[in-house]
Amino acid sequence: MVFKKITLIGSSGESFDDAVDDAVDRADATLQNVHWVEVDELGVEIASVDGREYQAEVTVAFELED
Amino acid sequence: MVFKKITLIGSSGESFDDAVDDAVDRADATLQNVHWVEVDELGVEIASVDGREYQAEVTVAFELED
Amino acid sequence: MVFKKITLIGSSGESFDDAVDDAVDRADATLQNVHWVEVDELGVEIASVDGREYQAEVTVAFELED
Amino acid sequence: MVFKKITLIGSSGESFDDAVDDAVDRADATLQNVHWVEVDELGVEIASVDGREYQAEVTVAFELED
Amino acid sequence: MVFKKITLIGSSGESFDDAVDDAVDRADATLQNVHWVEVDELGVEIASVDGREYQAEVTVAFELED
Amino acid sequence: MVFKKITLIGSSGESFDDAVDDAVDRADATLQNVHWVEVDELGVEIASVDGREYQAEVTVAFELED
Amino acid sequence: MVFKKITLIGSSGESFDDAVDDAVDRADATLQNVHWVEVDELGVEIASVDGREYQAEVTVAFELED
Amino acid sequence: MVFKKITLIGSSGESFDDAVDDAVDRADATLQNVHWVEVDELGVEIASVDGREYQAEVTVAFELED
Amino acid sequence: MVFKKITLIGSSGESFDDAVDDAVDRADATLQNVHWVEVDELGVEIASVDGREYQAEVTVAFELED
Amino acid sequence: MVFKKITLIGSSGESFDDAVDDAVDRADATLQNVHWVEVDELGVEIASVDGREYQAEVTVAFELED
Amino acid sequence: MVFKKITLIGSSGESFDDAVDDAVDRADATLQNVHWVEVDELGVEIASVDGREYQAEVTVAFELED
Amino acid sequence: MVFKKITLIGSSGESFDDAVDDAVDRADATLQNVHWVEVDELGVEIASVDGREYQAEVTVAFELED
Repeated sequence: MVFKKITLIGSSGESFDDAVDDAVDRADATLQNVHWVEVDELGVEIASVDGREYQAEVTVAFELED
Repeated sequence: MVFKKITLIGSSGESFDDAVDDAVDRADATLQNVHWVEVDELGVEIASVDGREYQAEVTVAFELED
Repeated sequence: MVFKKITLIGSSGESFDDAVDDAVDRADATLQNVHWVEVDELGVEIASVDGREYQAEVTVAFELED
Repeated sequence: MVFKKITLIGSSGESFDDAVDDAVDRADATLQNVHWVEVDELGVEIASVDGREYQAEVTVAFELED
Repeated sequence: MVFKKITLIGSSGESFDDAVDDAVDRADATLQNVHWVEVDELGVEIASVDGREYQAEVTVAFELED
Repeated sequence: MVFKKITLIGSSGESFDDAVDDAVDRADATLQNVHWVEVDELGVEIASVDGREYQAEVTVAFELED
Repeated sequence: MVFKKITLIGSSGESFDDAVDDAVDRADATLQNVHWVEVDELGVEIASVDGREYQAEVTVAFELED
Repeated sequence: MVFKKITLIGSSGESFDDAVDDAVDRADATLQNVHWVEVDELGVEIASVDGREYQAEVTVAFELED
Repeated sequence: MVFKKITLIGSSGESFDDAVDDAVDRADATLQNVHWVEVDELGVEIASVDGREYQAEVTVAFELED
Repeated sequence: MVFKKITLIGSSGESFDDAVDDAVDRADATLQNVHWVEVDELGVEIASVDGREYQAEVTVAFELED
Repeated sequence: MVFKKITLIGSSGESFDDAVDDAVDRADATLQNVHWVEVDELGVEIASVDGREYQAEVTVAFELED
Repeated sequence: MVFKKITLIGSSGESFDDAVDDAVDRADATLQNVHWVEVDELGVEIASVDGREYQAEVTVAFELED
């Protein structure tokens, strides 16, 4: 059993929870066997968006198939 | 006045705020004089649970009695 | 175009999202051209407040005028 | 000559050396031109396995083809 | 479900694997529900021992009872 | 021989040396076999005290009995 | 909008700027929508090359397509 | 003699050296008695600019007047 | 209630305690509502001074007025 | 009693334990009064060797003679 | 002008200031042109000494002769 | 084959590349078998020099003779 880790950045106009979920949703949609996620960094983008965009950089760990 | 610090991991099916509160609730129930809490790490457990379990590792600082 | 970064700590009786917003609101009210915000630390103050006070230390990046 | 780095987690019921080799074996089987590996973290999984499972998170550097 | 983490240092005259096992054995003998262990630091003590003493500082995570 | 590490915060109205000694005194009074202490952080509390309170967060390593 | 981050190492016989550009060129040639690059480490390889090879490890952030 | 440190981000279309100089120029133009500068991070902005914009985050130390 | 943090470097020909106090004195003289101070780095300047100059880099947290 | 610390990298075709011992052997052969060793990094060299070469970067602390 | 940095550990039965001075004294006695010193770690040795031995690990920067 | 690592600081009135080369030149002139160099820190000295002096702290790895 070998795991691989990749790094994604999700975003949301509402909350950090939603930004993390955004990245996890993407991982779930394209990867089999996602086991856990670590939150690396949280931030807010302001200048290039309307209002505030909550962002979460996460590391996704998933099991590789044999 | 001497403080001691311990490390707890709380969890919630709903949000990171609730996961932190879960750990603080536990500290409050078993320790006298909790002064503050630092959030060390946030993560999401997926493979071993139904849905997503939000987890928060926190350091709890409490005052030791003389 | 040169940016400057400063460090603020916001707080809220409700949630970490609100604590971050508290600091960003302050930055927006006193600084021109805030571009982005990085979350450095999250914590909960307990002993010196009623209930729990969620705190967020953030770094605010804003563009300096020429 | 450009290298790419990826992160894998190998495991073994025997030793940390075997856990690192497990991840390197996987990299060798699926990647051309693996040059070196850095060990990022060592750990032991206990609750979800029989006995103890030694785990090693490693970063694998391999040369990209032109 | 709340976890607590504590830090132990195990040692062995033979190998780092044995030093980690030494700390895990101690945790298993005195704590219920040990879930996982993280290796924080490895070192070798030389001056105060015969030969070489391999040492491993580990963080042990165990589930608190309700 | 297994060591355990705990984290204490000592304080003094006089100096950082005294703040470290304050934490070590507490450890010596309640723990058998304290071997060494590492200084993790130094700080000064000002708003909630008269004058200045020097604080030292330290990690205390002590030998567990068999 | 979800971003992914990958780690590349570029090299140049001339300068660190060229080594970073080498990695960015590779990213631009194979990835759509590269947004920004962070420089993680700089180094110089000497023994295995003629003269000096400047190397730059960078993290490349690019937008994933829906 | 007391120093203060502030954090600036300079940029250049040409090189990292110029990006650092851009931040130092700004500091020199608005602050008396700049003593030294530490480079904290290097990066390249790509998506929001024409070509590549080299960026350097630096910490500037200057002497406060009595 | 929002806090701001700034970084100062104090110095003393006598001791690290005095170097920290030097920076705190400066903060107290120019800022309202200093709440606490964190010690970031300690060092000794030798070549450019007579004897030894003890230096302390500190982060000062103060409450912003509404 | 003053200690000095130096950094060595040992290697072995067999295991990380042997790579650490390789560096400690070298230190013991050329330095008097080696007291302890800290393991800084573990890695595996693959491309430039036959098979796999386990490497260990260690810091060696030894007592200076008066 | 090229500087070299080495790491020393000084000690004192009295204070951390004296422990740092102990290491600086040693550097001054054996090295020409010591420019500055950075304090890396502070600790207290207890088990192997009478009373408490304050220890300071420092990095010493000195100018190499041409 | 055992490597040793030392830390040097090179400087240049022109660029960071030249500051790194300055340190590598010094290493090449006095050490046999320099294998690689890691850049640890970049900075600019301003107050004590004419104009700006670019500085680079590097770690040099070289093979020890048997």
